[in-house]
Parts: sequence; C-alpha cells; structure tokens
Amino acid sequence: MIDGTRLPLAGTETHLRADAVRNRARLLEAAARLAAEHGAAAITMETVAAAAGVGKGTVSRRFGDRNGLLQALLDHAEQRFQEAFLSGPPPLGPGAGAVTRLREFGPALLRHEHAGLDLYLAAEPGPDRRFEVPPKRLRHTHVAALVRAALPDADADLLAHTLLSSVDVVLVDHLVRVHGMSLERIETGWYDLVDRLLR
Amino acid sequence: MIDGTRLPLAGTETHLRADAVRNRARLLEAAARLAAEHGAAAITMETVAAAAGVGKGTVSRRFGDRNGLLQALLDHAEQRFQEAFLSGPPPLGPGAGAVTRLREFGPALLRHEHAGLDLYLAAEPGPDRRFEVPPKRLRHTHVAALVRAALPDADADLLAHTLLSSVDVVLVDHLVRVHGMSLERIETGWYDLVDRLLR
Repeated sequence: MIDGTRLPLAGTETHLRADAVRNRARLLEAAARLAAEHGAAAITMETVAAAAGVGKGTVSRRFGDRNGLLQALLDHAEQRFQEAFLSGPPPLGPGAGAVTRLREFGPALLRHEHAGLDLYLAAEPGPDRRFEVPPKRLRHTHVAALVRAALPDADADLLAHTLLSSVDVVLVDHLVRVHGMSLERIETGWYDLVDRLLR
Repeated sequence: MIDGTRLPLAGTETHLRADAVRNRARLLEAAARLAAEHGAAAITMETVAAAAGVGKGTVSRRFGDRNGLLQALLDHAEQRFQEAFLSGPPPLGPGAGAVTRLREFGPALLRHEHAGLDLYLAAEPGPDRRFEVPPKRLRHTHVAALVRAALPDADADLLAHTLLSSVDVVLVDHLVRVHGMSLERIETGWYDLVDRLLR
C-alpha cells in the first residue's frame, strides 16, 4: 500500500545534486515505462535496474525498497500533473479563461490518473481520509476557483466536489473494468456535464 | 467492520413467524434509537437488551453477536429506505413525475444515510468494490432511470454516478465533520445541481 498522504504539493521536491537528479529521473522514467507497459506489478528493484541499465544496488541506494520506489514514482507523476494545471501552458494552465481551463481539467485528470492507474488505486486512502489527502485538496481548491470564476452564483465548493467525483479514479476504474466503458465516453460525459452546468 | 455487500435488495427478507418478527423489530427499533441518540458505538448486546426490556440472551439468540446486530440494523434501515423510493408515496415513490422524484431522491438519501452515519461508514466497501455492492447498484439503477426519463439526451449512466457522488455518505461526512457544513446547504446544492442540469 502506497501512502497517498505523502504526495507532495508542487514545488516542494528536495534539492539534490545535478548528477543525482539526473540519475534519479532516469530510474523513475524507466519505472514509469515499465508501469505504463506492464502495470505496477512489473516494477521491482531488479526490473527497474535492468531497464535503466544500472545495477540493483544503485536503485536500492536511491529508493530503499520497492515501496519507496513506487512512492517516488507516484510523487514524480503527481508533481508533473500539478505543474501542468498550475503553471503549464493553456488550455490547462494560466492564459486560458476559467471556462476553458475547467472544461480541459477533467479529461486531463482522467488521462493522467488512468496512465498511473495501479499507482493511484494503491494510494487511494480509506474512507475516513478520502477527501483530506493533499493532492485531492489541491485539485479541489483549483477546480473550486475555476467554478467560482465561471459560475459566480453557484456553490463552488460543493460543485467542485461533484465535478471531481465524476472523474474519480476509483469510479473510472469501475466503469472501464466492470462496464467496459471507454475513456472517450467518460471524457464526453465531463464536457457535457460542464456545458450543462454553465449554460 | 460491517459487510456492506450483504445488504439486501428490497423484498428479500427471510420469513419468520409473526411473534419472532415482532420480537426482532422491537430489538432493532431499540438499537436504532440508541444509534440515533448516542452513535453506533453505544450499541452493545447489553445496551440493546436493556433498552428493549429483555434479557441479553434474547438479543444473543436473535443476532449472534454485536456484528450480527449491527448488520441486521443496517439491513433494516436500508430496506425501509429502498421501500420508500421504490414503492412508497410521492414525491419519492411512484406517482410523482421523474423530475420531482429525482429532485427529492438526493435529500432523502442524504438524510437517511446521515441518520445511520456510523453504520454506513462502517459498511463502506474498499476502493475495489465501492460501486459494486447491491445497495449502491440499486441506487444507481433507480437514479439512472429517473435521469433517462427527465433528460432523454443525457448519458444517464454517467450522470447518475455524478449525482449520487454529490451526496455520497463519505463526502457528506467529510463536509460536515471537517468543514462544518450544514445538511441544509448540501441539500440546497443537490436541488441546484439537478435544476442546472435540467434547465
């Protein structure tokens, strides 16, 4: 079980020396490729070492054990996504209007979490903390701000929860795995939901 | 931990002799009063026996242990709620139009689950089964049918998930407990959501 409560807010990564940063990024990219191609189950210290062309000792020194490696991988993916919606180019980042950013946020979140599905499902907190882990709070703050700008007369805090629930990784996994629903249909559902609320 | 997967669909209760049914109902009503007044933690074989004016042995013979008692209490509450929206009087039951029944379903669910909060939170399934337990599937089928009737051009399956998520017991507990939000505000949010979607 990965501890999703430890996902970083954007910009808080510890500073490492330049070569250590490059080394770490190379290992994480190798691990991300393995996860994308074969699922998180395929990630071990050995397979990541082999994929990155280094010895197992190098992976151990950097991440400790497999759990540390999975945690680092989730942090890495989460940080890239946070940068994309907080400071990346439009239509997701600043520069586009609130309506456009809101419309594009759902599909971006859906694609991002589905790409790291195993990791996000493993990090899913229990019911008592489901809405309290930092990454979920950051997403809620962001979406509520966009709703407030796009729909000044709505209850933005509540509506942001409703919008985020509609592309929640556990729901999306259920719809895809149990009901064979396509990600395209869920994306269309998001656009339709936002458009109905805004009109 | 109560096993929410075992919640009955309406109408499946085992037939008992009339006096056994009355006896069982009296114990469950005593337990429900205790839960409403003092929370599920106050429910023990002893407190229920005392509240119903019977010996502890009577409670044990009927429910086995405390878990069996809590499970029966949840089944009892769930069955009454299912009867209310499937076959009860309008505006929740048949006889009212789809729009009215849809508008009233959210607040009814919210009030029902909040009254049995401890029980529903204890029965909340893990992420892999969150949308697959029978009571949640029944609610989804019901809401999707109302959405289909009220909004023929919408993706009713998806929109039903979105609507139900907005009054999910775990979310409502978070909003009330962590953010001090009132049930009235969440009810208003449901009406506003339905009205925006339908206009």
